[in-house]
Amino acid sequence: MNIIMLPEEESWKELCLRPGLPGKDLETVVKSIISRVKSEGDKAVYYFSGKFDGVVPENLKVSYEEILKSEAHIPQSLKNAITTKGVRCWRKSVAIEKVGLYIPGGSAPLFSTLLMLGIPAKLAGCGEIIVCTPQGKDGKVNPLILYTAHLLGIADIFSVGGAQAIAAMAYGTETIPEVYKIFGPGNQYVTKAKELIQHDGIAIDMPAGPSEVLVIADDNASAEFVAADLLSQAEHGPDSQVIMLTTSNITLEKVKSEVDKQVQLLPRKDIALKALENSRLILLPTIDDCIDFSNLYAPEHLIINICDANSVTGMIKNAGSVFLGSFSCESAGDYASGTNHTLPTNGFAKNYSGVSTESFLKKITFQEINAEGIRNLGPSIELMAEAESLSGHMNAVSVRLKSLKND
Amino acid sequence: MNIIMLPEEESWKELCLRPGLPGKDLETVVKSIISRVKSEGDKAVYYFSGKFDGVVPENLKVSYEEILKSEAHIPQSLKNAITTKGVRCWRKSVAIEKVGLYIPGGSAPLFSTLLMLGIPAKLAGCGEIIVCTPQGKDGKVNPLILYTAHLLGIADIFSVGGAQAIAAMAYGTETIPEVYKIFGPGNQYVTKAKELIQHDGIAIDMPAGPSEVLVIADDNASAEFVAADLLSQAEHGPDSQVIMLTTSNITLEKVKSEVDKQVQLLPRKDIALKALENSRLILLPTIDDCIDFSNLYAPEHLIINICDANSVTGMIKNAGSVFLGSFSCESAGDYASGTNHTLPTNGFAKNYSGVSTESFLKKITFQEINAEGIRNLGPSIELMAEAESLSGHMNAVSVRLKSLKND
Repeated sequence: MNIIMLPEEESWKELCLRPGLPGKDLETVVKSIISRVKSEGDKAVYYFSGKFDGVVPENLKVSYEEILKSEAHIPQSLKNAITTKGVRCWRKSVAIEKVGLYIPGGSAPLFSTLLMLGIPAKLAGCGEIIVCTPQGKDGKVNPLILYTAHLLGIADIFSVGGAQAIAAMAYGTETIPEVYKIFGPGNQYVTKAKELIQHDGIAIDMPAGPSEVLVIADDNASAEFVAADLLSQAEHGPDSQVIMLTTSNITLEKVKSEVDKQVQLLPRKDIALKALENSRLILLPTIDDCIDFSNLYAPEHLIINICDANSVTGMIKNAGSVFLGSFSCESAGDYASGTNHTLPTNGFAKNYSGVSTESFLKKITFQEINAEGIRNLGPSIELMAEAESLSGHMNAVSVRLKSLKND
Repeated sequence: MNIIMLPEEESWKELCLRPGLPGKDLETVVKSIISRVKSEGDKAVYYFSGKFDGVVPENLKVSYEEILKSEAHIPQSLKNAITTKGVRCWRKSVAIEKVGLYIPGGSAPLFSTLLMLGIPAKLAGCGEIIVCTPQGKDGKVNPLILYTAHLLGIADIFSVGGAQAIAAMAYGTETIPEVYKIFGPGNQYVTKAKELIQHDGIAIDMPAGPSEVLVIADDNASAEFVAADLLSQAEHGPDSQVIMLTTSNITLEKVKSEVDKQVQLLPRKDIALKALENSRLILLPTIDDCIDFSNLYAPEHLIINICDANSVTGMIKNAGSVFLGSFSCESAGDYASGTNHTLPTNGFAKNYSGVSTESFLKKITFQEINAEGIRNLGPSIELMAEAESLSGHMNAVSVRLKSLKND
């Protein structure tokens, strides 16, 4: 072991370095494994098992008989599970110290996104909150963004956008400090940069895709409301997608003509029309089918504009944010109702949550074991560690149990 | 918009497809932006801002004067924040439907990892839990793994390891079903594969690195205990790292000789000796310095073996799991005390939490706004949407407010 006596604080960062991690070759090998499994399925799995493990299983799936037979191999002592005294465990939420918020500029100053990210960051208690946002054509950051940041008590605002903003927050520059987690939407360069910097251990809020809404409407729904809701998403970008599921032929027809009518009045009409090309009005037999389809689609925003919308909430498995009833329009959630508008898109609602105060916290577990605790737990730990062939783990318990015998 | 009448269920998956996402060229461009910002800092940021935005800010950091001046540009109506009646919002935890657990085989059957992942997955209520684990040299999966899976009520076990196992769970094969989130440790191929499949939206528990422990010991700590704790991590792998911080010269010397003595007795001595080459015993002036250093290192496991360990817990900012006092050895947390042993390594404790039941859940927000609610919130939403130049968002509110005026 290396012994270091009273190191200067400047050297601490270097002393915190981990042993080097593997490089580029590994990525090439693993990429080719992934691509072959993706295209060839089981065949590729058998091939690589043979190549790397030197042995190919008879069947990929372990049979139920083999699972049942396994019990015969396990000694009774190892089977005895335990609960015990003298052990105190707890879990504490601690704010992520340094976070970066990316606020897109582009065609509109998204100060609402700054509210949606800055408020939970402040509530969580993050020590250092920085904002990167592109300047406008006048070389200035939009005053709405500055005013909102000031309201939130955020003073570190950097006038930069795009992939270079994400890279700067990930690695730090002379002017822009590095952060541990980066939040916020952006164009495809921003999205790709957020994806790539994760390889160096910087966390991100969630993967991103174009915005989307799925509306479930019955024959009671106002076609005017539904069309307005569909268009409120369609105007986001040409790659946005809006979907309506309905059980009513009449609603479908009415919504179609309302969309055609309302879209003409939008300043962002060209964008919305492009998005409508990717969009769908789908007739399905029952509301249950609509919910099943929606769970498969896993929409960012799900508007349930049917009689008694509350009756179906229990069936919703995959969605970012759900809007119930005819007055719950999605733009309410975008700005003012209280839920967060930073939500999983592109089907990621299957496995990701929207941003919340939790997104700015991490959890640390604590435990305190006293002499009674280690006496109770110790023998089980020794057995389990031994069964995993980890004698050092066992020994850390054994030296303690031995010291108690000497008492 | 595309109209689809009563589609067959087989076509639903295709109907759920989003518009195509950008490809390889984008990755090359963004990689080069990231690498130049990483090496050249501000200079590269200015360069790319000029190149892509056509305008270079005078200063990257927005001045405090400019922030203060921004208020003058904002109309009073837009400044009025609001709270309101007629709006009901809530948040619901829903299990991730399909999860995959990777259990390494290699030199030891890690059934404890199966417990640490399988128990929270079951508690969360995940509908489909599958396990991939490599077979042993006899072509069979270790019975300890099978027995533990059976205890947990998991029957879908696949005999495959490595990057091909991760790829199979991410994309599905004829035999192995695809899942939405993949958990579990593994070698560098497994780690790299988990990193890469995220690009396709499959979630993972956390980025991985070699296991590590940091022990803070004062002159009261038993050198025998400290040495055993250091070695219990060192035996994990040649790339593991163990660190002791102490305020006592005597403890440092004693621990050094204890490590040299105890390591000779370990069956995994060769591995441990290799890990010790990366490892450090560091003398620091005070316990506060030790905690500061530890917060910078952000250890996976932090053992605080000092008098009154509880007095410093409030200062701990970055750690995976913390062990307080002389009897709280890390192997207790690995097997039996109740905390989870799937923890962030490699400094990721700065921005990631260990696995818990929460890791198998996602949160969906719900909202229900009635006529009173939209009357109260509506005008603010209209103002904010207009300020962001999103007329479609504004219109979704306007059509509803208009319908209420007609009442």
